[in-house]
Amino acid sequence: MKITANDISDAYKKISPFIHKTPVLTNNSINRITNSDLYFKCENFQKTGSFKARGAFNAILSVNEQKLKKGVATHSSGNHAAALAFAAQRLKIKSFIVMPKNAPVNKIEAVKSYDGLIVFCDSSLEAREATLEKVVTQTCATFIHPYNNYDIIKGQATAAYEFFNQIEKPDYILVPLGGGGILSGTSLATKYFSPNTKVIGVEPQIADDAFRSLRDGKIYSSTYPNTIADGLRTSLKKRTFRILKENNVEILTVKEKTIAEALFLIIERMKIVVEPSAVVTLAAVLENRKRFEGKKIGLLLSGGNLDLSKIPEYRKIAGKE
Amino acid sequence: MKITANDISDAYKKISPFIHKTPVLTNNSINRITNSDLYFKCENFQKTGSFKARGAFNAILSVNEQKLKKGVATHSSGNHAAALAFAAQRLKIKSFIVMPKNAPVNKIEAVKSYDGLIVFCDSSLEAREATLEKVVTQTCATFIHPYNNYDIIKGQATAAYEFFNQIEKPDYILVPLGGGGILSGTSLATKYFSPNTKVIGVEPQIADDAFRSLRDGKIYSSTYPNTIADGLRTSLKKRTFRILKENNVEILTVKEKTIAEALFLIIERMKIVVEPSAVVTLAAVLENRKRFEGKKIGLLLSGGNLDLSKIPEYRKIAGKE
Repeated sequence: MKITANDISDAYKKISPFIHKTPVLTNNSINRITNSDLYFKCENFQKTGSFKARGAFNAILSVNEQKLKKGVATHSSGNHAAALAFAAQRLKIKSFIVMPKNAPVNKIEAVKSYDGLIVFCDSSLEAREATLEKVVTQTCATFIHPYNNYDIIKGQATAAYEFFNQIEKPDYILVPLGGGGILSGTSLATKYFSPNTKVIGVEPQIADDAFRSLRDGKIYSSTYPNTIADGLRTSLKKRTFRILKENNVEILTVKEKTIAEALFLIIERMKIVVEPSAVVTLAAVLENRKRFEGKKIGLLLSGGNLDLSKIPEYRKIAGKE
Repeated sequence: MKITANDISDAYKKISPFIHKTPVLTNNSINRITNSDLYFKCENFQKTGSFKARGAFNAILSVNEQKLKKGVATHSSGNHAAALAFAAQRLKIKSFIVMPKNAPVNKIEAVKSYDGLIVFCDSSLEAREATLEKVVTQTCATFIHPYNNYDIIKGQATAAYEFFNQIEKPDYILVPLGGGGILSGTSLATKYFSPNTKVIGVEPQIADDAFRSLRDGKIYSSTYPNTIADGLRTSLKKRTFRILKENNVEILTVKEKTIAEALFLIIERMKIVVEPSAVVTLAAVLENRKRFEGKKIGLLLSGGNLDLSKIPEYRKIAGKE
């Protein structure tokens, strides 16, 4: 399956009634610190607080109506869970969300507030997958994987598509990398709509499975390392791996301390709320100043679902206490 | 001295090259909670992170050039200090800022980063005023009071002036109340540019000196109570008291717990950073639901200089831990 330019613009038309066109913000004082020209695409302001709403709407709207009557299902403890439940509620269908018992309380609350039917399970990947299979068998709901799904990837691609209509011809676009959904979508949108822009994926140094996977040409599974960028713990899957490989996407890795520093730079200077996973891109600019000096750079702020109870921990890592 | 409609529009023209036109944001989920139509004027995104930049620029630009060569001075441990230092730096004049030794580190850092010359003193009001007098005598700098100054009030009035050009004919405009600078400016801008809108000032219940002052017709001094809305501890002075009295401005008071709840509602739902002093207006809507139901309401989000080290304390007050 090949995703075309039309697939992306069609997805954008399809989801536009349901999502926000998010703003692009700039900040003089961060530009002065990095000596570059940064354009932040604020998907933290997106519905449900992350870009995942784009993929969720596109995926649901791509299932045929008859099947949709049975609802949709997924397993996730993060932003995809909330986005899928929200999109399902908005489109008046059922959603079944398999979540580990120890998922963060605020994520569970979010899914509940969107009328998602939560099925709890143990926290291992095996338990999640087994529970999901049971749910799908019983309900006949359509499984929508968080990223290893072409309709999800097309939906996530619309963030960059929208960005290139707001900011012309950046030298770089930097995107957080977990399972690779938003990164593979961005690599395609860039190829079609801003071909002179270089795409870079960024992941935590202690969760560098995608970097190693692309270097060695085979998928390494994630060991779910304890990075503060908790949205980036997952590993690539077949579809995202193939797209990133075909488009020869470069990967950079960043330190935990720099992620925490980038988090506070954005919160304190820009006065917007972002989550650690969203700021690895700024961390990459901070760790590679020479390379990015004087460049025009898009940074995808992927989400704003910050767990405020963890602020003291993040401050410690940033060396602020 | 009477501030006219022209004074406000002139101030706006004068300061426009130096300040941000701040956006007005809305949020569906907060509207659903309050069952009203809320328009947040985001002065947290203003230069230096608060509306104080408006008054500071207008005040400095209203001093004659000869006098300006000696610089400007003030005493403040808060947003006015940073705003005055920033405006002075931008306009290439000196600023002398008297700050108590125990002022928050981030405020001291902000003033330093804007090249403000800091003179430390003890934390009592007497010590601050005596130190300021000494500084003014020695330097011949012009003293710019944080709010008891007509040029400051005209500058602060431009926030509401700008708002009424963005949002037409709200039923109410709600404004935080400390010394009364932004509230008296707003009451004048509303009288001239949106006369059917009702202005309400909001202060913490444990810092209700302005409420009592207007009720009893005499200024009560602040006892600097320990409210989390630390920007609202100051008391009215002659000029702000007179304007609020003449315009018959209503005052509401709010509980600490509601302030903390409003803080997290805005941070978590709107994904923007605000300080406790900025959210007393939303707290007032939450405490007076019946009155504000179905109404179109402007809320002035006065600033975004949140002290992140205090998040655990605020969460406790909001009952989140």
